[in-house]
Amino acid sequence: MSDPRSSALEYAHEQKKRFLDELIEFSRIPSVSTDTERDTDVHKTANWLVKQLNNVGLENVKIYPTAGHPVVYGDHLAAGTEAPTVLIYGHYDVQPAEPLDKWDTPPFEPTERGENLYARGASDMKGQVAATLNAIEAILRTSQLPINAKFIIEGEEEIGSPNLPEFIKEHKELLACDFALNPDTGMIAPDLPTITYALRGLAYFELHLWGPSQDLHSGVFGGAVHNPAQVLADLIAGMHDEKGRITLPGFYDKVRDLTQDEREELARLPKGEAWYLENTGAPELWGEEGYSPDERVGARPTLEINGLLSGFTGEGAKTVLPAYAMAKISCRLVPDQDPDEVHQQLLQYLEEKAPATVKWEVIIMASGPASISDRSSPWALAYLKAAETSWGVKPVFKREGGSVPVVTAFQEILGVESVNMGFGLPTDNMHGPNEKLHLPTWYKGIDALIHFFFNLAN
Amino acid sequence: MSDPRSSALEYAHEQKKRFLDELIEFSRIPSVSTDTERDTDVHKTANWLVKQLNNVGLENVKIYPTAGHPVVYGDHLAAGTEAPTVLIYGHYDVQPAEPLDKWDTPPFEPTERGENLYARGASDMKGQVAATLNAIEAILRTSQLPINAKFIIEGEEEIGSPNLPEFIKEHKELLACDFALNPDTGMIAPDLPTITYALRGLAYFELHLWGPSQDLHSGVFGGAVHNPAQVLADLIAGMHDEKGRITLPGFYDKVRDLTQDEREELARLPKGEAWYLENTGAPELWGEEGYSPDERVGARPTLEINGLLSGFTGEGAKTVLPAYAMAKISCRLVPDQDPDEVHQQLLQYLEEKAPATVKWEVIIMASGPASISDRSSPWALAYLKAAETSWGVKPVFKREGGSVPVVTAFQEILGVESVNMGFGLPTDNMHGPNEKLHLPTWYKGIDALIHFFFNLAN
Repeated sequence: MSDPRSSALEYAHEQKKRFLDELIEFSRIPSVSTDTERDTDVHKTANWLVKQLNNVGLENVKIYPTAGHPVVYGDHLAAGTEAPTVLIYGHYDVQPAEPLDKWDTPPFEPTERGENLYARGASDMKGQVAATLNAIEAILRTSQLPINAKFIIEGEEEIGSPNLPEFIKEHKELLACDFALNPDTGMIAPDLPTITYALRGLAYFELHLWGPSQDLHSGVFGGAVHNPAQVLADLIAGMHDEKGRITLPGFYDKVRDLTQDEREELARLPKGEAWYLENTGAPELWGEEGYSPDERVGARPTLEINGLLSGFTGEGAKTVLPAYAMAKISCRLVPDQDPDEVHQQLLQYLEEKAPATVKWEVIIMASGPASISDRSSPWALAYLKAAETSWGVKPVFKREGGSVPVVTAFQEILGVESVNMGFGLPTDNMHGPNEKLHLPTWYKGIDALIHFFFNLAN
Repeated sequence: MSDPRSSALEYAHEQKKRFLDELIEFSRIPSVSTDTERDTDVHKTANWLVKQLNNVGLENVKIYPTAGHPVVYGDHLAAGTEAPTVLIYGHYDVQPAEPLDKWDTPPFEPTERGENLYARGASDMKGQVAATLNAIEAILRTSQLPINAKFIIEGEEEIGSPNLPEFIKEHKELLACDFALNPDTGMIAPDLPTITYALRGLAYFELHLWGPSQDLHSGVFGGAVHNPAQVLADLIAGMHDEKGRITLPGFYDKVRDLTQDEREELARLPKGEAWYLENTGAPELWGEEGYSPDERVGARPTLEINGLLSGFTGEGAKTVLPAYAMAKISCRLVPDQDPDEVHQQLLQYLEEKAPATVKWEVIIMASGPASISDRSSPWALAYLKAAETSWGVKPVFKREGGSVPVVTAFQEILGVESVNMGFGLPTDNMHGPNEKLHLPTWYKGIDALIHFFFNLAN
């Protein structure tokens, strides 16, 4: 085996033990970004990464301060301008480990048991960051990196990446690339490599309703004054029809339909109704007529009530006719819906439906479009082929119901698509106790990344 | 003028200054029942009343301790078993005076300005209690009381009379009477004496809905799981039809219709739409089709949303699909609705309408029937004639939208109707700053009570 690909794979297999030891070292530092008492540990982790990036052989390795936790950057650009440039995203911060008593071994004493490494952050996503570094190292130690690679590893993902968009805007040149690799979206099942090619957008509103000028006695005035909580219920009830479809005017006009090909692909996902029932505890499922649960969550827009508040909600029986009612209402959006247009649709709905017995206001709380990647881009195909080589299984393309802000930021600021993948599993307890990384999957992932980087060059 | 009625009236007119001085003394004691730091003052007021009842010439005057503030009792039963016995209700406690800086003169330094006496409790209801005592005194000093009178004056009305029903149950013999006089419901306008002949009942529920077993991420699961806040909105929206009528099955079956005579009587009330708009600040009025605001509030049942709570209601945009939603829902009832039947109707509605995607529960929080008095009872007619004599105006019969627990307690425990009247005015700021009593109205009220007691004997 003298070709560069085989040499890199062989190197990676020889270094398995050392790769694991380094991941254990990485996972030992409690870089909990939500906990200001852990700020020192968060910075310690950034410094550990700087050392690691340098060891791997990356250049221009540097800690960039932000208004919050720093970003670690490093690159390897020797492949020249003819070769593609990949921006590899990661985050080195982790979720809090509480409740500690639910852990079988301490969260920051990484422990190998069976096929797994147990530690907070092992799966989300120190293991994923390490895998990308290990793959690059394997290539650099045995031949030459056939593509250009840039690493951007942030420390605030678990608190919503508040400073990342600003950092990307300020460093557009530094981060310029052909596409981004985001190994934070995982696999849907062991031995089923997964590419998440679509993420839903979000349009989040607060609806405020005012009726009488102050809370009234429901005995003295009840019957003659329209109750704002009742009006709110009427308005919310009218936002869906009996088929589970959203009634805001024009809401579906720009919704990109699923192709037959996509529906067949989504039907390969090993989830289905039973999975949703089990994972939600809901007595029965529900949703838009004519779509499977996976399609409803991944490819159809929604309108959810995230919060309701009106009147007296404490203990007991206060006979108040409330002056005010409020709902938090958010829409998950799919391509090609525009959050601003959805805002206008909500306003139009309210102008048509809200009775003159109340005054109302809509406040925009959050807003971002959906993202969708070309499943047949060279980058997606390169990973498709790499994962198929490593696992011997054709990967599935998956749509994800949530939003990943960094993917939107890369798209909007850098103008690039992301290949969203990773080696985390649904059973990894990523935000819970006993978080773990499945090591056989992880090792296959390192192989897949090596294949990926070579595939990209062809 | 030598007939007893004229003598009593003459005495009352001569004693105006002294009556007012005594009311000032009564109002000076800050008997705020909601404030435990005022307990001493509350007891001081009870003792002041004991002295006053004795001065008037009542017998068996006594303070009865309860689990809370004491009840003051006194009677005059010399008219014998042939004469009717009236139970005169009152309360000697008052609302808190805060905010103190909104008072033009201190709340517990009663001040005469223009035609009014300004003091906390002057109208609600120390002035009313004093008027009944003054009228009895005027008769006892000049002739003989032609009826039997029993006074029950409690100290916990402003905290919901928690110990009064128990007291009445324990003293049924002591309180036995032909009817009760409740001078706590006031007049609808100056020079418009008012009898409140109907009060609405109450059936107060909490509706709890559970969907998924815990709060879900609205991105990961939104679209496939029925949102309990949305289900709650659907259920609430369905509780009224487009005519403002309540859709609980059988809800109107036992509702006693207004007679044409009653409608004409209610139409005499000088309130109307403008009054409701001004006093609620609602942009527009609303209600059951075919009824005026006064009819809707007084004579028609309602279903109000008193509180709504679900999901995230703090600041910001949390993308939660709530596991739980709650509403406080209360019905104001009219004769002859039964609160227990309304409970069953709500359960039936939910059994028919609640989808299988949620679980639900209804908790009964409060329950009491409506009350209605015979407008042509001897007691009502006696007061009607008395007030007409005093004011020169035919009194109006009014229905009140709220509930008065003591009226229900007298009805349920003692089996007697109440004549609900009084000399408080809507402009008296009864629970607000600058509470006042309109003295010309008050003096006419004392005259009316003298006429009333004489009328009762005929």
